[in-house]
Amino acid sequence: MAEKLSGGSRGKPIRCKAAVCRKPSEPLVIEEIMVAPPMPHEVRVRIIYTSLCHSDLTFWKMKDFPAIFPRILGHEAIGVVESVGEDVNEVSEGDTVIPTFMADCGECGDCNSAKSNLCSKLPFKVSPFMPRYETSRFTDLNGEALYHFLSVSSFTEYTVVDIAHVTKIDSGIPLTKAAGLLSCGVSTGVGAAWRTANVEPGSTVAIFGLGSIGLAVAEGARLCGASRIIGVDVNEDKFEVGKKFGLTDFVNASNSENKSASEVIIEMTDGGADYCFECVGMASVVQEAYASCRKGWGKTIVLGVDRPGSQVSIPANDILCTGKSLMGVLFGGLKPKSDIPILLNRYINMELQLDEFVTHEVTFEDINKAFDLLVEGKCLRCVICMNDQ
Amino acid sequence: MAEKLSGGSRGKPIRCKAAVCRKPSEPLVIEEIMVAPPMPHEVRVRIIYTSLCHSDLTFWKMKDFPAIFPRILGHEAIGVVESVGEDVNEVSEGDTVIPTFMADCGECGDCNSAKSNLCSKLPFKVSPFMPRYETSRFTDLNGEALYHFLSVSSFTEYTVVDIAHVTKIDSGIPLTKAAGLLSCGVSTGVGAAWRTANVEPGSTVAIFGLGSIGLAVAEGARLCGASRIIGVDVNEDKFEVGKKFGLTDFVNASNSENKSASEVIIEMTDGGADYCFECVGMASVVQEAYASCRKGWGKTIVLGVDRPGSQVSIPANDILCTGKSLMGVLFGGLKPKSDIPILLNRYINMELQLDEFVTHEVTFEDINKAFDLLVEGKCLRCVICMNDQ
Repeated sequence: MAEKLSGGSRGKPIRCKAAVCRKPSEPLVIEEIMVAPPMPHEVRVRIIYTSLCHSDLTFWKMKDFPAIFPRILGHEAIGVVESVGEDVNEVSEGDTVIPTFMADCGECGDCNSAKSNLCSKLPFKVSPFMPRYETSRFTDLNGEALYHFLSVSSFTEYTVVDIAHVTKIDSGIPLTKAAGLLSCGVSTGVGAAWRTANVEPGSTVAIFGLGSIGLAVAEGARLCGASRIIGVDVNEDKFEVGKKFGLTDFVNASNSENKSASEVIIEMTDGGADYCFECVGMASVVQEAYASCRKGWGKTIVLGVDRPGSQVSIPANDILCTGKSLMGVLFGGLKPKSDIPILLNRYINMELQLDEFVTHEVTFEDINKAFDLLVEGKCLRCVICMNDQ
Repeated sequence: MAEKLSGGSRGKPIRCKAAVCRKPSEPLVIEEIMVAPPMPHEVRVRIIYTSLCHSDLTFWKMKDFPAIFPRILGHEAIGVVESVGEDVNEVSEGDTVIPTFMADCGECGDCNSAKSNLCSKLPFKVSPFMPRYETSRFTDLNGEALYHFLSVSSFTEYTVVDIAHVTKIDSGIPLTKAAGLLSCGVSTGVGAAWRTANVEPGSTVAIFGLGSIGLAVAEGARLCGASRIIGVDVNEDKFEVGKKFGLTDFVNASNSENKSASEVIIEMTDGGADYCFECVGMASVVQEAYASCRKGWGKTIVLGVDRPGSQVSIPANDILCTGKSLMGVLFGGLKPKSDIPILLNRYINMELQLDEFVTHEVTFEDINKAFDLLVEGKCLRCVICMNDQ
């Protein structure tokens, strides 16, 4: 059990437990590591709750670059600031924070534009290091560096995160298991419906892939007032799960009487859905989503991460003649520091459902069970409760 | 010379001259034809000025379906209503009208939505017939049917057009040679910048292909207050031509010191253009335009007509990670009946440049010279003045 360090640990390395991914597809190893103090513009955070996202699984399985080992995975979390580096004024020791894989520096052209959430100063990349210095803050007890993941690395009792990757939470807001889901998955889905697509009341939505991200899109579309939310998946069980997030219809992508999902959706909606969301990460599904959109104004939003090199292919004259648009978005198009607090308030006000995404909980020691559950498709979100909760 | 028919011709066939395309790539044949009276919801129009657009050239050269012969080409024009069919209340004999290849029925879901200009009742198609009845109003003197083109067929002294394809012009507005350009090319380009992209003041625009459509995009971007308008073409002479429509920079797509046009544009603009317009009709150029867009908010708008079957291929993770959007648009996203009068007023108020697109004029008998000029790339728009002007 990690002690709740305060004051005395400031400026010194912390020895604590981490779940280290030493080899691809092998169980994480809970071991003691050293976490260096934060450099300027960095904060050291005690993780309270973290959860497993599909991207963790992808990089856990991946054998080649940009996979790298040994690495501390995890990027969906909530925690408390243990200490801050120089030039950090935005948060203080004891503040509750949500780390995010997306930066929000507040200074660059993108962060200062209402139209972009792609920080130019600390751009998104799957780096093994801290974003500002390209170095690691983690070492194992043999002195070997451990690599970071998505600027967060939350599968450890303590981590170091750049201040641009941290959103401060009001002290009055209770620190719940579900709140950490705003760190990645739920924000990505809800944001895509809300900020990126700007789903209009009464409109029709089709969601391809009903994992947590897809269901979070449904939740976002529900909050925006969509009148019909069609889920597309190969697993029929997802329909029941999805109903609580607003799903009104289900299309089985693998069993539609010789019709493609897009043909079924076009029939169901008399022309196509107003908004289609791709939450699988397959070029062929992007093409199917695009084909499912209503001519004239249909928008296809890509959220799924495909394998490198994959190409989306659309007939040139479909682009010209249908008036449909195609775009993708990271983190739902949200700006973490301004949008996470809005979503958190909607959760506190019982508008946004978050607890409903938490289907499982495990202790930190049992973190590998969370991997098993996600691999088997048995959970939406499995929250990993750190030792001292 | 066609007599200015009025009153007496109502309800009867009109015998007049037309330039008939009897075989692909062969000179049009000026011959006498019969033009049937308008059916219900149709109007018969005396063409005053027409002009040659690249789509006419494409279908003049095309050997196979959807090409069909004998056909009366032409779809960019201005004329005067000779008579109206039953159930036509919107225009009367003597009204000046601009026919358009796009319908605006005013009744369907698309026409009633601010988000679409793709009329569902009379959808865009390259049909050889009148849109509402799938029949022809033209016959030659041997009684053989002549096919229609794009619901307009303006290379004739008289044509019949569906009321949904006609925009009435205020009687106070002078009927100039240039006004007919709002029937297709200039509206398409200006509309794409104005209605579809909604180019913001101070923004950066890149235009691929500097024919009339591309230069009309420049004119639209100039009117929207773009601060930098970059033209991309293989013909350096286009830069001088384009300066009067607001071009500030030129990139020679075929001679950029081993750099692609997108690499040059990204360097010039420190990250990419805010808006890119494809006005060539080649999938590879669409891809280059997409690559030239600024991450975070860049929009690529496709205006060019590619050959059937051509596919645009974009890396899946570029779609996901760049936040760029891709869409296409017919007629610049304009609704003919409401937007053409707005553009015409801006022309009358000397804000929108139209006369500057008219580089040549020929008589109707010399219509084949207009084809020669366009094939040789020597003109922007060549206006064909009908006989009795």
